[in-house]
Amino acid sequence: MEFKSDIEIAQESTPLPITEIAKQLGISEDYVEQYGKYKAKIDYNIMNDMKNENGKLILVTAITPTPAGEGKTTTTVGLSDGLRKIGKKSMVALREPSLGPVFGVKGGAAGGGYAQVVPMEDINLHFTGDFHAIGAANNLLAAMIDNHIYQGNTLDIDPRRITWKRAVDMNDRQLRFIADGLGGRVNGMPREDGFEITVASEVMAILCLALNIDDLKERLGRIIVGYTRDEKPVTAADLKAHGAMAALLKDALKPNLVQTLEGTPAFIHGGPFANIAHGCNSIMATKMALKFGDYAVTEAGFGADLGAEKFLDIKCRMAGIQPSAVVLVATVRALKHHGGVAKADLNNENLEALEKGLPNLLRHVENVTKVFGLPCVVAINAFPTDTRAELDLVEAKCNALGVNVALSEVWAKGGEGGVALAKEVVRLCEEPNSFKQSYELDIPIVEKIETIVKKIYHGAGVQLVGNAVKQAQQLTELGFDKLPICMAKTQYSISDDPTLKGAPEGFTVTVRNLKVSAGAGFIVVLTGDVMTMPGLPKVPSAEKIDVDSTGKIAGLF
Amino acid sequence: MEFKSDIEIAQESTPLPITEIAKQLGISEDYVEQYGKYKAKIDYNIMNDMKNENGKLILVTAITPTPAGEGKTTTTVGLSDGLRKIGKKSMVALREPSLGPVFGVKGGAAGGGYAQVVPMEDINLHFTGDFHAIGAANNLLAAMIDNHIYQGNTLDIDPRRITWKRAVDMNDRQLRFIADGLGGRVNGMPREDGFEITVASEVMAILCLALNIDDLKERLGRIIVGYTRDEKPVTAADLKAHGAMAALLKDALKPNLVQTLEGTPAFIHGGPFANIAHGCNSIMATKMALKFGDYAVTEAGFGADLGAEKFLDIKCRMAGIQPSAVVLVATVRALKHHGGVAKADLNNENLEALEKGLPNLLRHVENVTKVFGLPCVVAINAFPTDTRAELDLVEAKCNALGVNVALSEVWAKGGEGGVALAKEVVRLCEEPNSFKQSYELDIPIVEKIETIVKKIYHGAGVQLVGNAVKQAQQLTELGFDKLPICMAKTQYSISDDPTLKGAPEGFTVTVRNLKVSAGAGFIVVLTGDVMTMPGLPKVPSAEKIDVDSTGKIAGLF
Repeated sequence: MEFKSDIEIAQESTPLPITEIAKQLGISEDYVEQYGKYKAKIDYNIMNDMKNENGKLILVTAITPTPAGEGKTTTTVGLSDGLRKIGKKSMVALREPSLGPVFGVKGGAAGGGYAQVVPMEDINLHFTGDFHAIGAANNLLAAMIDNHIYQGNTLDIDPRRITWKRAVDMNDRQLRFIADGLGGRVNGMPREDGFEITVASEVMAILCLALNIDDLKERLGRIIVGYTRDEKPVTAADLKAHGAMAALLKDALKPNLVQTLEGTPAFIHGGPFANIAHGCNSIMATKMALKFGDYAVTEAGFGADLGAEKFLDIKCRMAGIQPSAVVLVATVRALKHHGGVAKADLNNENLEALEKGLPNLLRHVENVTKVFGLPCVVAINAFPTDTRAELDLVEAKCNALGVNVALSEVWAKGGEGGVALAKEVVRLCEEPNSFKQSYELDIPIVEKIETIVKKIYHGAGVQLVGNAVKQAQQLTELGFDKLPICMAKTQYSISDDPTLKGAPEGFTVTVRNLKVSAGAGFIVVLTGDVMTMPGLPKVPSAEKIDVDSTGKIAGLF
Repeated sequence: MEFKSDIEIAQESTPLPITEIAKQLGISEDYVEQYGKYKAKIDYNIMNDMKNENGKLILVTAITPTPAGEGKTTTTVGLSDGLRKIGKKSMVALREPSLGPVFGVKGGAAGGGYAQVVPMEDINLHFTGDFHAIGAANNLLAAMIDNHIYQGNTLDIDPRRITWKRAVDMNDRQLRFIADGLGGRVNGMPREDGFEITVASEVMAILCLALNIDDLKERLGRIIVGYTRDEKPVTAADLKAHGAMAALLKDALKPNLVQTLEGTPAFIHGGPFANIAHGCNSIMATKMALKFGDYAVTEAGFGADLGAEKFLDIKCRMAGIQPSAVVLVATVRALKHHGGVAKADLNNENLEALEKGLPNLLRHVENVTKVFGLPCVVAINAFPTDTRAELDLVEAKCNALGVNVALSEVWAKGGEGGVALAKEVVRLCEEPNSFKQSYELDIPIVEKIETIVKKIYHGAGVQLVGNAVKQAQQLTELGFDKLPICMAKTQYSISDDPTLKGAPEGFTVTVRNLKVSAGAGFIVVLTGDVMTMPGLPKVPSAEKIDVDSTGKIAGLF
């Protein structure tokens, strides 16, 4: 069986002018800033002009994923198209892709098959320039830190305790650990330094959590860039960098409007890491989607233990919003993987392993429904390699356990393949909803971590090792103990051990480091080394990407 | 006397929608890609659809400048507005500003006073993202070089002989000299490295010299990134990077259309350094301006010895275009400086020093008219501090020597202040034109350098020191001897010694290094250290830049 590539499908589509999409949404021309014919930024000032009425928010999350991903973006897009098919005014709110994976291994991130957002080439390349603006704001701050030290260091910043890194939107392992300021007295102050990929920058998280431009600027000002020789935090505001940083971000803060292959309007805006940050698109875009759609479908990174937990405990809390229903994406492949099947054998039918993998799915469902009190439906994201018997088994098991389930065939069929899921989601949105966060903010830092570990991960407890104990104490002394927690752990297990598949219990989560992202407004809890600058593979995808003499892109997938 | 700041003047203006400007030019909607309401990219595919008829090209250059600059951009904008005032269909073609100076000392670069292009905030900040795209293409190549070495180095690249640097559009001295690939075996291969500001990247020069996207890709493929252990050049094509780089640049290659305060259409596109590169806006933009305007006014960086020489010897040669007239901008301040007045005293009337500074002006005029065979007019760019006696003296002296001259008051009066200059330019465009380049390509490299030094600089000769002799030989052996020369020397003297003001003679130019920019297609001749990564000053302009809650920028100047 031959399949068309994502880019082929996307390039065969005939999207509507973005002005037409905006018009259908009732957005006045005054607020539409076109970027070419099929992309637009929507001015945030529109939010002041809008009536105080919101659509229903639908969160798409997933079981513990395999490295290939389980199709959350594809499901989000297809579900929205499915909602349109059954006559609902739906909107999509997604994250923007990073250039790193595009040129590395993973390729694009604009959905797949017949459930994509377009223009996929632009979305996957620079799009409207948001990530570059974030990188520039990040790097302006970095340049101002080192310039401050070079020009006399009146703030007494300790060059060994600068925590702010430079950023580039590229997979470039060579920049992970560097020494800069070399070359003698006129060329800076030698020190150890490093780069992160732009999506790992705190500026990215801040942009995604900012409620408006004033809030953005205040958050930028609160960024801690390092510490003085007597251990006091130094902020971006101390360096008078936050005004210029906000100026650099004035357009990046405006949500980007595009459309799905079927013409459903989609906001694609922001894309923070799902480990050291909270992993979902911007609050501004989600709020706009809720204003313009009766149903706003959005996603959160990685599995529900990370993505949904942070979406609900961090983003929803800061934004003052809450979902009406949660869609949990599962694939036959991932379930078999949790049932013990090796990566190479995932394409072979294996009902026994499939059944053995179900506890992972059920654990996530339980967290959503019992811990967070939200209606939940499992969406089985069908792959061409799935057998009928496998798909039937998952459905039957869910039904037997009273778990809502729907087959999603959006990759192959677009919105038509999402109708069953859409109907179920609409039904769930009318169900009673007893949403609550998994922890309160006013308990001590370590207690918050323990709550997440016990309630969400089903671990036995938490062990703070190395500097973590001291860090918890210092953060409390500095007054950051009321912030929410942002867990940075492996996405490949509900525990902090990537080899523990399924629904492990009894494990202890080891916390190695605590770090405050004071601008974003959360405490990052590191359970292991988190890579914030990926590398390119032996044969980078970049080698296959090309453009013809008319400007048409090929080789993106 | 109180003056309004540039940003105040710009923000008080009411520009036309960019679609209206495009319509006035007769550009079909199909080719207009809006970036907000007041910026657009014009699709290069339009060039295939256009009639083969060109307007007249006017080059704006300057005498040897002071660090403050002599107002070439302001004059270019004001002259175009002046041409409109006298009923001519004029267009502007300018360089894009870099973020570095915006946050550093110099501030914005979109003209000044009542001769500006708008929206000046956007033009000075990310504009349409071109520089970020150039940086990304530059850094993708860098990541692929180091990844190639990391993954086994089948091309046998010598890590000590990598000539390709990473780039960031920021003044960040800390990144001039770095060691990267630190942190052990999984984090790359340790080596010495460094960053350039994006405008210094060869990708910038390539984008500005590319005739179309195929030419762009071929040039990118020819970039030499370093040498093997047995001294063979390694190119971007060897690394299969040029396709993806061109894909990243597919939109950046499209010229950006904006307008002046008076509604004259302006292309602002590309901005390479004027020392290690050729220092003028893109060929694509200049050619488009020539298609859409009866008069296309453009500028070149630094003084005429650098900017005009490269414009005429490199850009015009590669593009197959030529100016019909040259405007040489002079200021009373700079003339007094050449007459020996110290920087602090430039605001005081000094007729004697003024007269003593005139030879600098005359030398440049002579080069334009005698060496290049082009009609030339001196534009005296009036400053509020100039006295009437000073302005009159320059005019009288020029008239006495048979040098065309016109007073330009565009900073204070906009197009109205450029009418005299515009009339003179129109007259000159009808004069006989015996344009020729200053040297032929088929003479040896050193002979080309000597020709420039003797004919343009009026020096006695050239001395190659250090590696330069060997480099000239190697570049000849590698087949690069037929390329044009790109002189990298101080802009503060016609010689290579910044302290030699006026019109020095008899000096010998010392050449320290030769370097091929094989993609751009020229040989860079370095007469001293050229700084390709500026630093921030003690109080960076960034500290004053701010944005209000509606997204309006303040503090840019």
